[in-house]
Amino acid sequence: MPSTVIRNVRPLGREAVDVVLDSGKVSALLPAGGAPAEMSTLVDGQGQLLLPALVESHVHFDKSLWATPWRPNSAGPTRNHRITNEHTVLKDFKVPMAERAGPLIEHCIARGSLYFRSHLDVQTVWGIQHVEAMLALREKYKHLIELQLVAFPQGGLLIAPGTHALMEQALELGCDVVGGIDPAGIDLDPIRHLEQIFALAVKYGRGIDIHLHDLGEMGRWEVERIADMTEAMGLQGQVVISHAYSLGAFPPADLCALADRLAALRISIMTCAPPHVTVPPVAMLRSRGVNVCSGSDGIRDAWSPMGNGDMLERAMLMALRFNWGKDEDLAAAFDVVSQGGARALGIADYGLDVGCQANLVLLPAENLPEAVVNRSQQRTVISRGRVVARDGVFLAG
Amino acid sequence: MPSTVIRNVRPLGREAVDVVLDSGKVSALLPAGGAPAEMSTLVDGQGQLLLPALVESHVHFDKSLWATPWRPNSAGPTRNHRITNEHTVLKDFKVPMAERAGPLIEHCIARGSLYFRSHLDVQTVWGIQHVEAMLALREKYKHLIELQLVAFPQGGLLIAPGTHALMEQALELGCDVVGGIDPAGIDLDPIRHLEQIFALAVKYGRGIDIHLHDLGEMGRWEVERIADMTEAMGLQGQVVISHAYSLGAFPPADLCALADRLAALRISIMTCAPPHVTVPPVAMLRSRGVNVCSGSDGIRDAWSPMGNGDMLERAMLMALRFNWGKDEDLAAAFDVVSQGGARALGIADYGLDVGCQANLVLLPAENLPEAVVNRSQQRTVISRGRVVARDGVFLAG
Ligand SMILES: [Zn+2]
Ligand SMILES: [Zn+2]
Repeated sequence: MPSTVIRNVRPLGREAVDVVLDSGKVSALLPAGGAPAEMSTLVDGQGQLLLPALVESHVHFDKSLWATPWRPNSAGPTRNHRITNEHTVLKDFKVPMAERAGPLIEHCIARGSLYFRSHLDVQTVWGIQHVEAMLALREKYKHLIELQLVAFPQGGLLIAPGTHALMEQALELGCDVVGGIDPAGIDLDPIRHLEQIFALAVKYGRGIDIHLHDLGEMGRWEVERIADMTEAMGLQGQVVISHAYSLGAFPPADLCALADRLAALRISIMTCAPPHVTVPPVAMLRSRGVNVCSGSDGIRDAWSPMGNGDMLERAMLMALRFNWGKDEDLAAAFDVVSQGGARALGIADYGLDVGCQANLVLLPAENLPEAVVNRSQQRTVISRGRVVARDGVFLAG
Repeated sequence: MPSTVIRNVRPLGREAVDVVLDSGKVSALLPAGGAPAEMSTLVDGQGQLLLPALVESHVHFDKSLWATPWRPNSAGPTRNHRITNEHTVLKDFKVPMAERAGPLIEHCIARGSLYFRSHLDVQTVWGIQHVEAMLALREKYKHLIELQLVAFPQGGLLIAPGTHALMEQALELGCDVVGGIDPAGIDLDPIRHLEQIFALAVKYGRGIDIHLHDLGEMGRWEVERIADMTEAMGLQGQVVISHAYSLGAFPPADLCALADRLAALRISIMTCAPPHVTVPPVAMLRSRGVNVCSGSDGIRDAWSPMGNGDMLERAMLMALRFNWGKDEDLAAAFDVVSQGGARALGIADYGLDVGCQANLVLLPAENLPEAVVNRSQQRTVISRGRVVARDGVFLAG
């Protein structure tokens, strides 16, 4: 495969360069105009901003009703009601998962995400059907995206006998990560829940990504216990705590010691920065070295009709949530949906440097802060050196 | 002017109709296919959703840096710092206001807003320059939009001697509404501040729209005093309280009596539903008959780089803020940026009924909730019976 070049783009808003690509990787960054004229032009960037592809660190592709007719939300007020409501909605849903999740993946690609971590329900009501369907979809899109799958015990682990065996099946089939959920609030026995998911992680050599909605003192205490077990099991750098609403319930200054511990154990915090609950203090956490990533969570599913999988919009929503307006804060919001995600997901060859995968987004913006604020839809998305979407249209089908 | 017809559109998602327009007004709604074939077709709607034009009830066109190079935000942490910072930024700004606010108005039109209320700084630092420039712009766009102007004492009224005389000048020149700001927090003498703005309203026969950021008990007490004066002066239906953050500081149930009073006095509450502060309990207020409207507030100005003037996005942000997902809640969010705005601004011929101004938006969506969630940019905007924007592009220049 001969070299190609993206001409005249500004990496994260810096001086314009020509980006030479070889075998789907960035092989050289030359001053703009520096790439030989005879080298094949992949894109004439015309001075647009160049970004690394966005990282969707927390999504539930298996739940989505994307690409199906509008369905009025029928969820009840509590998390347990919503879990049961989802059974009613998804069990025997007429459109198979592949026809919902597939178009949604293509939509997310068109918005510039090429790295994903999707939780997949592992529940007694439908066993490992979601895992099997998603493994097939991962195969279908493996030439375009990196997709990590989390075996997620949505209905609880201890309170739903049979789930543990399903989790083992899901991990044997190829799930990359062990999921967990509210050890206290849902599973009603926090230590035993954590012991079981950490044991699964060790047994299968996988990481952990735990949904922690438990609030206030309870949730904070659970974060501490997750840190204990991460340390005890030697799983540094392999644990993500998703949501961690409880960390927003305290003055950030009271959480400094805990933040330092999370940083030392390289435990990442995933927050969608929703506006209706307390959320982890992202700026404080980052200032103490804690890695923070973000995601869409559910996208048009039985839980909520909201969401569009746009991680640049997610960065904007995070900035709004914290009333961030300074350039460095808007850049931090972008870091959360790019490098922060790559660190949480353990992606080695991520970024704009020589040797990185040529997974890139071009869009019209003066600089990074403006890209976050404006969220231009005129995005050119490049996967492994190939243009796969332009102006919101997926082209690689 | 002969009749024209918008064929095959679904008003707010209802059964498809043909909308006949005469002299810039809706003259008939016929079942789809019912309009005579020989009648001139303005738009073939192809089953798209038909909405009334959106209402931007609170914006600051005069402050915006729209259509100018990115300027890193330099505002300090307090409201008083931000007011001073704005003087530094805007005083002698190289691009005149018309070249910033004009393109922004056109952008807002392209997003579907045709009714606006803009606050305009009336301050000793620049006198009534903002008012004069904006009156000229209002003239320029009067064939397309309805634009109400508020004489807004951003720097305080009592604490900034000379402002009162400028307010009178602004009202004499044609400002439609008397503005006010934090009678306690900024102006340091709540009763005298309110007495002065209510006296101006009575003297000039105008309404009132007061910025009330004061928090907690203080702000709530001021809402009560605004109600007192509205009643005493007979200004029912002519007062808007913007922001009213304080109303979010109490359990909604504690505010029922106050809400009933606001409803009886037809005092509207304007909230942008920002995620980083307490906000008025919109659902409770509406359930007790209080009119609620919304706006963008500042758009890319010295206060904040955020904002895009998209009132459909504002409805989505409000739904996110309150974790609304039910169809009726998403419809309520739309009502806030449409009928709620029209009521607050006192627009009589607003809506989709026969006799209303033909100020309309068409977009692809299955129904109203989906329109709010998806915020499609493929909007056709019709002002007074004429297509003035399509797919985000302003066409009426
Ligand atoms: Zn989740
Ligand atoms: Zn304002």
